[in-house]
Amino acid sequence: MTDAVLSRLREALGSALSTDPSTLESTRADKSGHVSATAPLAIVTAGSIEDVQATLRIANEFRMPVVPRGAGTGLAGGAVGEAGEIVLSTLAMNRVLELSVADELAVVEPGILNGEFNDSLHEHGLWFAPDPASRAISTIGGNIATNAGGLLCAKYGVTREAVLGLKVVLADGRLLDLGHRSVKGVSGLDLTALMIGSEGTLGVIVEATLRLRPLPRGTVATIGAYFPDIEAAATASAAITAAGLAPAVMELLDAASLRAIDAHLGSNLSSRGTAYLLVQTDGVASASEAGEALAIIRSLGGEAELSTDAAEGERLLAIRRAFHPSLEAQGTVLIEDVAVPRSMLPEMFRRIGLLEQKYHIAIPTVAHAGDGNLHPNFLIDGPATGGPPEVPDRIWEAAGELFAAALALGGTLTGEHGVGILKRRWLGDELGGDQLGLQREIKRLFDPQGILNPGKVF
Amino acid sequence: MTDAVLSRLREALGSALSTDPSTLESTRADKSGHVSATAPLAIVTAGSIEDVQATLRIANEFRMPVVPRGAGTGLAGGAVGEAGEIVLSTLAMNRVLELSVADELAVVEPGILNGEFNDSLHEHGLWFAPDPASRAISTIGGNIATNAGGLLCAKYGVTREAVLGLKVVLADGRLLDLGHRSVKGVSGLDLTALMIGSEGTLGVIVEATLRLRPLPRGTVATIGAYFPDIEAAATASAAITAAGLAPAVMELLDAASLRAIDAHLGSNLSSRGTAYLLVQTDGVASASEAGEALAIIRSLGGEAELSTDAAEGERLLAIRRAFHPSLEAQGTVLIEDVAVPRSMLPEMFRRIGLLEQKYHIAIPTVAHAGDGNLHPNFLIDGPATGGPPEVPDRIWEAAGELFAAALALGGTLTGEHGVGILKRRWLGDELGGDQLGLQREIKRLFDPQGILNPGKVF
Repeated sequence: MTDAVLSRLREALGSALSTDPSTLESTRADKSGHVSATAPLAIVTAGSIEDVQATLRIANEFRMPVVPRGAGTGLAGGAVGEAGEIVLSTLAMNRVLELSVADELAVVEPGILNGEFNDSLHEHGLWFAPDPASRAISTIGGNIATNAGGLLCAKYGVTREAVLGLKVVLADGRLLDLGHRSVKGVSGLDLTALMIGSEGTLGVIVEATLRLRPLPRGTVATIGAYFPDIEAAATASAAITAAGLAPAVMELLDAASLRAIDAHLGSNLSSRGTAYLLVQTDGVASASEAGEALAIIRSLGGEAELSTDAAEGERLLAIRRAFHPSLEAQGTVLIEDVAVPRSMLPEMFRRIGLLEQKYHIAIPTVAHAGDGNLHPNFLIDGPATGGPPEVPDRIWEAAGELFAAALALGGTLTGEHGVGILKRRWLGDELGGDQLGLQREIKRLFDPQGILNPGKVF
Repeated sequence: MTDAVLSRLREALGSALSTDPSTLESTRADKSGHVSATAPLAIVTAGSIEDVQATLRIANEFRMPVVPRGAGTGLAGGAVGEAGEIVLSTLAMNRVLELSVADELAVVEPGILNGEFNDSLHEHGLWFAPDPASRAISTIGGNIATNAGGLLCAKYGVTREAVLGLKVVLADGRLLDLGHRSVKGVSGLDLTALMIGSEGTLGVIVEATLRLRPLPRGTVATIGAYFPDIEAAATASAAITAAGLAPAVMELLDAASLRAIDAHLGSNLSSRGTAYLLVQTDGVASASEAGEALAIIRSLGGEAELSTDAAEGERLLAIRRAFHPSLEAQGTVLIEDVAVPRSMLPEMFRRIGLLEQKYHIAIPTVAHAGDGNLHPNFLIDGPATGGPPEVPDRIWEAAGELFAAALALGGTLTGEHGVGILKRRWLGDELGGDQLGLQREIKRLFDPQGILNPGKVF
């Protein structure tokens, strides 16, 4: 059957189909550290909606599993291909099809990189707000498939809020046109929202109508603040929100994070405090908001500096930016992604501290403090024999306790990375049996043969 | 069978069940002008989630249709009961269950009125942004069931953006807990968003976790501007958005609207222009944004005044507020609700003008200019014999052309009111056959026996 499928795909797609071993090899991993056991059967690099439709029609006929994939920068294994699967890449579909300055919208293909797309908007005085940390290397299609978050979400919303409409190819190859070009619209069920964050399990996103925003005016102000402990820093960030201020960025680094950065950069940040709070305000009220935030920080024991100078601001931001490279320098990292109600941030940090003690490991953690999304990081050592590093059972055990703590505090397993492969086994804990059952039935409705990204999410 | 159902319901619900004719009579209508042919069988006024579950369990067993209803202020017939149906009112479930200032969230029952709820938040420095014009009389549950919009959506988003989680009772009586308390969360499919705007066809909303916002700071500034024609006014509103300004309110009234208001108030607004543009800015940048908007308006031929005085601002707003009462004074009104991309507003107004000529009727139209949502109003005369007024075929014909025009311009049938009964026949024109089919299958999945709000939307 495999030969028959490949022959049909080749006939329909020509050189868009590849079985080149090194190309296939590259689709076994994403940025999560997870690597599939074996390489997939083939990869289709779609150049058009018709290519996507042809691939799915043929795959559906032969019941062959299809893994939609963008740039492969996911953090949950959602776009990883393995034995017997066809990887369907939309990376080559990367054009901006339309830009309407008057309507503040753009129509794009899914493969365009978020950062590249944003760069092209700036000359028009516009931007696309969703800003996953991966935006220089991740695609808009992938951002939508995972409902990606980022640093700016508390003020500017997640990806869902920035998508007006989608074209989606269903498992059987039919093309659906969802949503609208108008800002508002309530005709029927909101299938656009249902598709956003569905991680390739319901359909393949082949076009998106995006809501853009005017570039914020005013001068960006940046605050870097050191605190004697993480609870004080988390309390300060909560107080800033409670005061009605709306920072664009509010990031929190804990003691283990500062130590990792010091080790990497040769800096001595840890001598200034055991927690770092970065606050950035933008817009016309930027200066006054930053001034108020600074006063709150100082009143709560923070040692802080504020700058509206671009180079100075960049220096304060660079500390946050150094976080992931510092950890990667130490080995392979499992980046977790729980979220809790903001008021629970201090308690969540406390529980992470308890896990560090119990498991005798460091769990360097950065939080998007404005929206309660934490990224606790677990260092994984690769096996001495080489080959893909595996997450040890002991680390999964600690991560499992982390998830349970987030759920107990009214939070979620995943704030912005998605479920993919890595969080499947805990999904039922969050959703409950009835909801998980209903979600599986919806999946079956869209994809009766289960060919779309099987083994992911559900 | 009817007797058996009523007896079972009475046994389970006691005095929450009523078959009092005058109570039943009141559920035959909403605010759309539509009145059902006959009264429903019974009404359950639920006092708890358990009441809702009991009602649905029994109804599902007997395959009896159930119509969820809040305050009955809908504009599409979505909550209207008729022969053989059980109306399930959540109006008495109206408590605020929790308010967290730190997390800027509230947990409420569905029956609480939007305006009343908002009033209770102000002392805490918070507000709930969704602001349908009906907010003094409509419920949060109804706002969610229709994904209600309002005047502030361009700046503050629609209802979907303000709902973090929902408790929903399914057709078979099971209780689902959807969404989360954290700002972010991407565990599985976004069933919360799917439920928002589903108009009672998928389940009954029995509790909502709402995202609140800090009250805007600064002084509100209000501009009232008269233009020589509606195209110029629409061009000015588009230019304000394109300049990167974000007014909280931007409302546009056409010539027929001003005439109706003059007739009602005895004013002479029409002598000052044939279009009125109301702009209101808020927040810290309010004054500077209003100043810029004023300059744009004047440069495009508007005769405008700006005020930051509350009483003066109220006087400028009162013109907009007088719109609906002015029309209602003339007779029963069918309020339509198309939305188009903002840049298409001038063209949409031109097409409404053509319809006025073709059908020899006035179609007074107000638009939420910031988001492209228009409310063209059709006057319907009640039959001389009394009884509920019916929309004449000729008016539906004109409305049908209106919908077709909105779709042709990249818009939608309904920006914020929903489909209900009144727009069912056009829904397929917007969604297309494949999408409509898929939506119907999702409906069937949630409600296999079709007991939830049958004949609405689908």
